[in-house]
Amino acid sequence: MNANEKFIAADAHVDAAAIAPLPNSRKIYVTGSRPDIRVPMREIAQSPTGDTPNPPVTVYDCSGPYTDPAAAIDIRKGLPGLRAQWIAERNDTEELPGLSSDYGRQRLADAELSNLRFDLGRRPRRAKPGANVTQMHYARRGIITPEMEYVAIRENQKLEGLDDLLRSQHPGQSFGASIPRVITPEFVRDEIARGRAIIPNNINHPESEPMIIGRNFLTKINCNIGNSPLASTIQDEVDKMTWAIRWGGDTVMDLSTGKNIHETREWIVRNSPVAIGTVPIYQALEKVDGKAEDLTWEIFRDTLIEQAEQGVDYFTIHAGVLLRYVPLTAKRMTGIVSRGGSILAKWCLSHHKENFLYTHFEDICEIMKAYDVAFSLGDGLRPGSIYDANDAAQMGELETLGELTKIAWKHDVQVMIEGPGHVPMHMIKFNMDEQLRLCGEAPFYTLGPLTTDIAPGYDHITSAIGAAMIGWYGTAMLCYVTPKEHLGLPDKNDVKDGIMAYKIAAHAADLAKGHPGAQVRDNALSKARFEFRWEDQFNLGLDPDKAREFHDETLPQHGAKLAHFCSMCGPHFCSMKITQDVRDYAAKIGVSEQEALNKGMEVKAVEFVKAGSEIYKVS
Amino acid sequence: MNANEKFIAADAHVDAAAIAPLPNSRKIYVTGSRPDIRVPMREIAQSPTGDTPNPPVTVYDCSGPYTDPAAAIDIRKGLPGLRAQWIAERNDTEELPGLSSDYGRQRLADAELSNLRFDLGRRPRRAKPGANVTQMHYARRGIITPEMEYVAIRENQKLEGLDDLLRSQHPGQSFGASIPRVITPEFVRDEIARGRAIIPNNINHPESEPMIIGRNFLTKINCNIGNSPLASTIQDEVDKMTWAIRWGGDTVMDLSTGKNIHETREWIVRNSPVAIGTVPIYQALEKVDGKAEDLTWEIFRDTLIEQAEQGVDYFTIHAGVLLRYVPLTAKRMTGIVSRGGSILAKWCLSHHKENFLYTHFEDICEIMKAYDVAFSLGDGLRPGSIYDANDAAQMGELETLGELTKIAWKHDVQVMIEGPGHVPMHMIKFNMDEQLRLCGEAPFYTLGPLTTDIAPGYDHITSAIGAAMIGWYGTAMLCYVTPKEHLGLPDKNDVKDGIMAYKIAAHAADLAKGHPGAQVRDNALSKARFEFRWEDQFNLGLDPDKAREFHDETLPQHGAKLAHFCSMCGPHFCSMKITQDVRDYAAKIGVSEQEALNKGMEVKAVEFVKAGSEIYKVS
Repeated sequence: MNANEKFIAADAHVDAAAIAPLPNSRKIYVTGSRPDIRVPMREIAQSPTGDTPNPPVTVYDCSGPYTDPAAAIDIRKGLPGLRAQWIAERNDTEELPGLSSDYGRQRLADAELSNLRFDLGRRPRRAKPGANVTQMHYARRGIITPEMEYVAIRENQKLEGLDDLLRSQHPGQSFGASIPRVITPEFVRDEIARGRAIIPNNINHPESEPMIIGRNFLTKINCNIGNSPLASTIQDEVDKMTWAIRWGGDTVMDLSTGKNIHETREWIVRNSPVAIGTVPIYQALEKVDGKAEDLTWEIFRDTLIEQAEQGVDYFTIHAGVLLRYVPLTAKRMTGIVSRGGSILAKWCLSHHKENFLYTHFEDICEIMKAYDVAFSLGDGLRPGSIYDANDAAQMGELETLGELTKIAWKHDVQVMIEGPGHVPMHMIKFNMDEQLRLCGEAPFYTLGPLTTDIAPGYDHITSAIGAAMIGWYGTAMLCYVTPKEHLGLPDKNDVKDGIMAYKIAAHAADLAKGHPGAQVRDNALSKARFEFRWEDQFNLGLDPDKAREFHDETLPQHGAKLAHFCSMCGPHFCSMKITQDVRDYAAKIGVSEQEALNKGMEVKAVEFVKAGSEIYKVS
Repeated sequence: MNANEKFIAADAHVDAAAIAPLPNSRKIYVTGSRPDIRVPMREIAQSPTGDTPNPPVTVYDCSGPYTDPAAAIDIRKGLPGLRAQWIAERNDTEELPGLSSDYGRQRLADAELSNLRFDLGRRPRRAKPGANVTQMHYARRGIITPEMEYVAIRENQKLEGLDDLLRSQHPGQSFGASIPRVITPEFVRDEIARGRAIIPNNINHPESEPMIIGRNFLTKINCNIGNSPLASTIQDEVDKMTWAIRWGGDTVMDLSTGKNIHETREWIVRNSPVAIGTVPIYQALEKVDGKAEDLTWEIFRDTLIEQAEQGVDYFTIHAGVLLRYVPLTAKRMTGIVSRGGSILAKWCLSHHKENFLYTHFEDICEIMKAYDVAFSLGDGLRPGSIYDANDAAQMGELETLGELTKIAWKHDVQVMIEGPGHVPMHMIKFNMDEQLRLCGEAPFYTLGPLTTDIAPGYDHITSAIGAAMIGWYGTAMLCYVTPKEHLGLPDKNDVKDGIMAYKIAAHAADLAKGHPGAQVRDNALSKARFEFRWEDQFNLGLDPDKAREFHDETLPQHGAKLAHFCSMCGPHFCSMKITQDVRDYAAKIGVSEQEALNKGMEVKAVEFVKAGSEIYKVS
C-alpha cells in the first residue's frame, strides 16, 4: 500500500494549486536595514466605495515564493537560501566535508535510493568547535541578527498608512502578556534572550523565512504532515506542505513513520519556506524495526545529527516522560496517547531505567546549539480523553519540562513546551497558568486542546474551541487537528480544513489578547460586507475560494457579485440596505453622531424626536 | 427560481435519509407516572471488551418518531398529537370553529393553493375566554404538568445503572447556575415558575415532544431553515427539518421569506416533533410587499394569530428596537444586521413613532398566553461585526428586553432573550453577565457569537468557539450558524455541518458547567477508542456516518474495524497498544494503582524502581 516506491525524483513537480495566484492579491516585500532583508507579505487590493478608494490590506504571508509569480519554482532544485549569507557572515559555522551521521551517509551510499533522492548539491554546516549558533545565544550577547529584524518587520504587518477606522480595535485582555504597539528588532532580541520567544531556524535550513513564536507575538499554527506505513508518497507530502503554507501554516511538522523517512524529509525541508519540526524518536524507532526496547542513545543521537544536518528547525523531545510518571497513567481512561510518550514509556519499563532523553539531556543541548535546532519539549503524557485531563502524570511531566527548560537555557538553546490534548473548557486555563509558572514563560505550543471526545470526524472543531481559548490565555503556537484525527491519515482536504479551523482560533486569540492591528482584517472585511463589495469580502477572508463557491451555489451570475442583496433575503428586502437608509437619516438630522453617542441614549432620543417628521419620510 | 410552485401535496414524501436507522441504536421510551408519558431516547449498544460486556449508552434524542422503525411515517398526515390528551384534560382551551386570522382564512379559501396545502383535518384551539394556558401559569399555581414531568425524565438521560467509571466526571464551573444532580418534575416546575426556564409548547402543536430551555438544563441548539425568494421548495424545507432533528436540533426556526410562507410552515409544524420558532415580522413584511413602512399593528396582530393557530411554539419579537436606539447604530461598521431589527428601525424612522411591538407589548402578551407561545425577545440591534460588539445600541436594547421580560412575566408568559452576534472572545462574558443581571435569569438564546469576521465559509467554526464559551457561562440555547452564513441559503449539507459544530459547542458547555452525566458519552467513547472498539467509537460519536467514512478512506477493509491499530501509525507500532502494555506492567508490580496515585509521584517512583527488573522484561 505504500506508494513511496513509485516516486521518481526526476518526475517531481510543484502542485499547480500551490502556485496559483490568490485572488486580487499580490506579493510584496518590505525591505529592512539591508537589501537582503526582504520580508514577504500579501497585499489584497480592494474595490472603491462609490468614488472613494479603499486601501489595500496587507496580511501575514506564510506561502513563501510559491505565490510570487516572479519566482521560478522547481522543487527538484529547492528554494533559494535566503539566509545563507547571514549565516556565513557570522563566521561561526563551518561547512562539513559531508554528512556526520552514520545513517545519513548510509542512505547517501544506497544506490537503490538514487532515483528518489533529492539532489542536495551542497554540504551541511555546523558550528565551529566551541561555537554556539543559536538565536538565543546571539540575543543574550546583545546581537540583533537579520533574522530578528526580519520577524519584527513581519509581525508589524505593514499597518502604517491605514486609516483610523480600519485600525480601531477593542482593548484586549492579555492575562499578563506584554505586547508592544510596535514590534522592534530590539524587542524581538530581548524576548528571545529571556526565553519568551523563539525563532526556529536551523543553519542548515537557509531556505526558511524567519518567524517568531512567543506569547507577545501573533499566535502561530503548526500543521502536521507525514506518511505512515499504510499511505502516502513523497510527492503527496511535498504537496501537503506547499498546500499547508498557502493557507497559513506557520510551521510544518513532518511526522513520517512510513518508508524513506530520510528522503521524504529532505524533499520537504529543501522546498519549505517555513520552519520544519520533527519527532526524531519516530525515525529512531523505525531504525530498530519498531521495537522500542531496542532503542539506544547512540541510535537516537545519530538521528538527531542526521536530521539537524538536513535542516530540521525544531525537535520534539519527550525528555519529561520519567520512569516514575509512567505508572501514574495506568488508571487512565486512555493511557498514554502520545506516540513519543508511549515509545519512551515502553523503553523505560523494558530497561527499568530512566528515560535516556532525560539522562542525556545536556548531550542533546550540545547538538541543538551546534545547528540552532530549537527544543519542542514533548508532552508524552498528555491526556487523550476528557477523563484524563490535568491528571498527576500530565502535571508531573510539565514540572519536569520546566526543569529541562532551565537546563536548555543554560546552554542558550531555544525552547518551547508542548501541551495537551483533551481538556474540558473550564480546565484549560489551569494548563496555561501552570505552564507559565513552571516553564518561565517559554512559548507554549498546544495540540488543541479538544474540549470534548464525542465528535470523531469533527475534531478540528472540538479542538479549535480549546485552541482559541488557550491562545487567548497565552499559548504561542497552536498545533492543528484535522477532521481525520483519531480516524485516519489526513489528505490535502483535511489539511486545509484543519488549517482553516486553526487560523480562526489563532486570530480569535489575537483579537482577544488585543494584539495591535489584529482587528484590521475584520474591520476591512466587515466594511466590505456592509457595502456589498462581495469580491472584497471573499478576497479578504481566510479562504476566498470557498466563500466564492458558496455564494455561487445560489447566485452564480456575475451580476450577483455586484448586487446589493444576497440569497438569504433576496432583492426586495435587505437589512444591510435598510441600515444604509438609517445611516443617511441619522446623518441628516444634523446632530453629530459621535456627539450623540457621547451624550447617551436618553438625550439623543429626545433630540431625535424633536428633529421633525419631514426628515424621516421615506419615498 | 422559486420552485415552490412545483411542490404538490399529494407527492410529498419523507426523506429516506431521515428515517434510516442510526447504527447499532434503538429507540427506547421511558415511561413516566402515566402510560402516555413516554419519553424517547436513543440507546447505543456496545460490543464487549474481551468477555466483559459494555453497557448500552443512552443519549438525548431529538429525532422524534422518524427514527422509530415501529412508527408509521406519512408526512401528508403529520405526526400523532402526543400532547392532545394532556391539553384537552386541562379543560382550559376550546376548539375554534375555524381559523381566527383573516390571512389564515384567506389562504384556506384560495383554491389555487389546494394542491400544495397540508390537509389539517382538525380545528385550532385557543384558551377559553379569560384562561391562561402557559406552562408558566400552571407552574406558578403549583401544577406539575405532564410536559414538565416529560422534560424531567428527558433531561436525566436514563443514567442510572451505569458504572462509576462511565459516570465519573470533573467538577464543573457553572458561574452561579444551580444544577441539581437529578432533575425532578418539581425542579422543572420551580424553574419555569421563576422564569429561569421555558417549555415552548403551543397548544396547537400537540405533535411536539416537550423540551426545556434554561441554564440549569442541558444546553440546547436551534437550527434555522426556511426558503427565500430565490431558493427552495416546501419539500426541501420539510426535508431540512427532518434532517436537522436527526442530528440533534432541539428547536427549528422557520425563517421563510419566500413564497407560500403560510403553507410551508403548516407542513413543517405538522411534521415536527421539536418546537418551531418563527419571526412573525418576516411574514408580515411579505404581506405588505416588503415595504416596512406599510406595516401596521393590525397586520402584525393577524400574523401572530395566524401563526399561533398553526402551532408555532415561540416568536421572535423585536420589541426592544426603540426609536431612540436607532441613531446609535449610525456610526457602526455594519449598522443593523438583524433583519427584524432593520425592518422595525425603518418603520420607526418612517413613521417617526415608537416601535409598535413595544407599544403593543401587552396586547402581544394576551395572544401569547391564549396559545402558550413563548417570547424570544429579539436582539434587533445585535452587532454584525467585531467592531460593533457590545456597543451602546446593543446594550440599550438589552436593558429594554429586561423591562419587557418583567412585563411578560406579569402575564405568566414564557420568555427567552436573544443575544449576539459578533463578539471577540474576551467580550463574551460581559454579554452573559449583563443578560443575567438585566433579564432576571430568563434563558439566554444566542447566535454564536462569532469570534472573528475574517472567515466567510467557516462561520460555523468562528461562532462555535463563541457559542461554547457563552454556553459555559450560562446561555441556555445556541442558535446555529452554518458554513453558508453571510454567503447563501443553507442546504441540507450546511444544516448538518452547522448542527455538528453546535452540538459540539453545547456539549463542551455542558462538560464545563459540570452538568450531571455530561461526561458519560465522552467516557464511553474514549474507552471504546482506547480498546480499539472502532465500531463503538463511530456509533457513540455525534456523526457515526462521517467517522466511518473517514476511517474507510484509508482502511476500507472490514478487518480494519477489528484491528488494534489505525492508519496513523500502522500495524507495527501503536501508542494505544503500548499503553495497554504499560497498564499490564503497572498491575503486575503488585501495588494498587489507585493507592500509588494517592501516595503521589515521588513515593511511587521509589516503589517502582524497587520492584525489580525481571518484572519489566519485554519478550
